[in-house]
Amino acid sequence: MTPAADAPRSPAPLPPAAEKTLADLSETAVLGRIFPRLPTASAQLLGPGDDAAVISAPDGRFVVTTDMMIQGPDFRLAWSTPHDLGWKAAATNLSDVAAMGARPTALVVAIAAPPSTPVSVLEGIADGLRDCCEALAPGCGVVGGDLSASDALTLAVTAFGDLEGRAPVLRSGARPGDTVALSGRLGAAGIGLELLFHRGVDALGVPDRDRANALKLTHPTEVAAQLTPVPPIASGPLAALAGATAMLDVSDGLAIDAGRIARASGVCIDFDSGCLGERLEVALGGGEDHGLLATFPPDVVLPPGFRRLGTVAAASASTVGTITVDGAAHDQGGWDPYRGWDGAAG
Amino acid sequence: MTPAADAPRSPAPLPPAAEKTLADLSETAVLGRIFPRLPTASAQLLGPGDDAAVISAPDGRFVVTTDMMIQGPDFRLAWSTPHDLGWKAAATNLSDVAAMGARPTALVVAIAAPPSTPVSVLEGIADGLRDCCEALAPGCGVVGGDLSASDALTLAVTAFGDLEGRAPVLRSGARPGDTVALSGRLGAAGIGLELLFHRGVDALGVPDRDRANALKLTHPTEVAAQLTPVPPIASGPLAALAGATAMLDVSDGLAIDAGRIARASGVCIDFDSGCLGERLEVALGGGEDHGLLATFPPDVVLPPGFRRLGTVAAASASTVGTITVDGAAHDQGGWDPYRGWDGAAG
Repeated sequence: MTPAADAPRSPAPLPPAAEKTLADLSETAVLGRIFPRLPTASAQLLGPGDDAAVISAPDGRFVVTTDMMIQGPDFRLAWSTPHDLGWKAAATNLSDVAAMGARPTALVVAIAAPPSTPVSVLEGIADGLRDCCEALAPGCGVVGGDLSASDALTLAVTAFGDLEGRAPVLRSGARPGDTVALSGRLGAAGIGLELLFHRGVDALGVPDRDRANALKLTHPTEVAAQLTPVPPIASGPLAALAGATAMLDVSDGLAIDAGRIARASGVCIDFDSGCLGERLEVALGGGEDHGLLATFPPDVVLPPGFRRLGTVAAASASTVGTITVDGAAHDQGGWDPYRGWDGAAG
Repeated sequence: MTPAADAPRSPAPLPPAAEKTLADLSETAVLGRIFPRLPTASAQLLGPGDDAAVISAPDGRFVVTTDMMIQGPDFRLAWSTPHDLGWKAAATNLSDVAAMGARPTALVVAIAAPPSTPVSVLEGIADGLRDCCEALAPGCGVVGGDLSASDALTLAVTAFGDLEGRAPVLRSGARPGDTVALSGRLGAAGIGLELLFHRGVDALGVPDRDRANALKLTHPTEVAAQLTPVPPIASGPLAALAGATAMLDVSDGLAIDAGRIARASGVCIDFDSGCLGERLEVALGGGEDHGLLATFPPDVVLPPGFRRLGTVAAASASTVGTITVDGAAHDQGGWDPYRGWDGAAG
C-alpha cells in the first residue's frame, strides 16, 4: 500500500442540485412559480383563481382563435428552448387575432407535460409567453390556464381580441382591382425549417441541439423566423382602419393562403414577380411566415408596414380561387398536418 | 380429386370496407365531415372559415375557461367511446362557466390525434360535443377549432359564457352564517372510477373494453357519472340570480373544493353529516362530481336543484380554510395531476 493510496482523495464534485420536476411539486406550487411570470391583461376583469376568468369586451363582441402545439409534430426540444415555445405559441395565436383586424387582449394557455419535466421548462414557457405579449401586443396578457400530465409536451393557446367597434376583416371581401399587399417577411421561416431538418439533425436524422445551435449562429434570421416568429401584430388593426377588404395570416405559404382569399372572395389573385424577390418559389411556398396578407381598394394608401405584391383579378368559373404570377397559372401545392407530419421527436 | 374440391367454394366474406383514417383525407376533408355535426352557437357572429371567430358579448364582458383531456392520464379509449369523450370535454368546461353564474355561449375545440385515427372517432367526438351542448346548454355551440397530429388523442376545449349583466360569483364571497348548498350528486363519479380501475381492467391491469362494458350494465349510474357527467349547468345562473355569495364546480371532491371556498373567503365550512348520505367519505372525497357548490345568505330560499349541506362559520387564524363535519375537523386530502397520474393508456 503506497502512502498515496492512503491519502485523502479530493472529494468528488457534488452533483448539481437536482432540479425540481413537476412531480416533485404540487399543482398549486407549480402554478405559484408560473403565474408571477405571466403578464396581466389590461382587459382582465377577473384573473386566475376562480373556475373561469372574466374579460372585458368593450364593443360587445370578442374575437377568438385556438391552436395546439405538440412536441414531435410541431416542435423539437432539441431545436426550441422553452422560451422559444412560449414565444411561438403566443405569436401564432396573436397573428390570427390580428388577421381579423383586431387588437389582441388576452390568452388562456393549457399546458400538458410529463411529470419528469423540470419546473424550469414551464417557467421558460411562461417567460416566452410574457416576452412575446409585451413585445408584440402590449396590454395583452394571460388570464387563465390548465395544467395536465402527458407523455408529450403540449401547449394549447386560445387568444382573444377586441375589434374596437370595427367590422372584422374576412377572407371573403377581396374585389377585382384591389391591391394585394403584405406586412411581414416571406420565405425565411421555410428556409429555417429546411435548414433545421437537413443540418440540425445528427447522422441518423435525429434533431440535435448542438447542430441547431450552430445554425442559429450561421443563419440567425432564417432559424429565428422559424422558431421565434415576429408577426406584425400591429399591422392588423392598421389594415382594418385603412379599409382592408380581406386579410389572413400567412401560415401555410403565400400561394396557398392567397388561394384561400381568392376562393372565399370568388376572385383570382395575380402576383407581380418583381415584388416577390429573387427566389420566387421560396416566397410563394415557404410555410409559417406569419405575415399578414391583405387586399385594399385600389385608391387606398397602404398603411405602414404593407408593401404591394399584386392585384386582385376577376375570375371565371374555371379560374375562381386560383393565383397567377405575372398572369401565368401557379400550382398552389399544399400542406396537411396528417400527411406532412415528420414525427421526429428530439 | 373429389368433385367437392373442384366445386366453387363460397366466397370468403369481404373484409369490411377499410375505414378512412385522418391520414387518408386532407385536413379540409376531415373538417368537412366534422363541422356539419357541430352545433352553431346563437352568440356566433362569425364562425369557422376565417383566422378567428367573432362571438357576441352583450354586456361587454365574457367568461372564459380552458381544460385539456389527454389519452392515458385523463381517459382510456377502452372505457370511453368517442361520443363519451366529446360529451365529457364539453360538460366539464360548461360546468366551469356555470360556476361563475354565467350562461355558456360557445366553445372552441382543438383536437390532436394520430394520423391512423379513423375519421369516425372525430365524428363521434363531434357528436358528443353537440349532444352535450344541446342537452345541457341549449344555444351554446362550437365556433372554431384546430386539428393537429399527435401520438396521444388530445382534446383542448375553451368555453365562453355570458354573465347577462350580473357580477360573477367568485370563490371568495362566502360569509359566516351563509348556507352551504349543492346542486348535483356526490360520490357516484368517484365510485365509477374506482370500479373502472379495479374491475374494468384485465388480469394485467390494462383497461379492457369488455369488462368496462359489463360495468356499464351492472353499475350504470356510477360509470356514467364518471364517463359522461351531467353537471347542472342551469343551476349556475339560477344560483347567481338567487344571490349566491360564492360558488365553484366540485371537480376534486367536496372536501377539497369546499376548502377552496373557505380559504378564498377566509372562513370555515361546516357540513352536517346528516346531509351527506350514509357514505361520508365517498361524499366528501369522490372526485369529478361536477356539481355546483354554492353559499347563500341565510335568508335566501335555495333555488331549484340546490339542497343544503351545511353552514359557513367564522374562522380563527388557525382554522381559516378548513372544513368540519358536525363541528369536528376533517382532513381534506388532495389530488394532484402530476402525482395522481396512473399512466395506463388502453
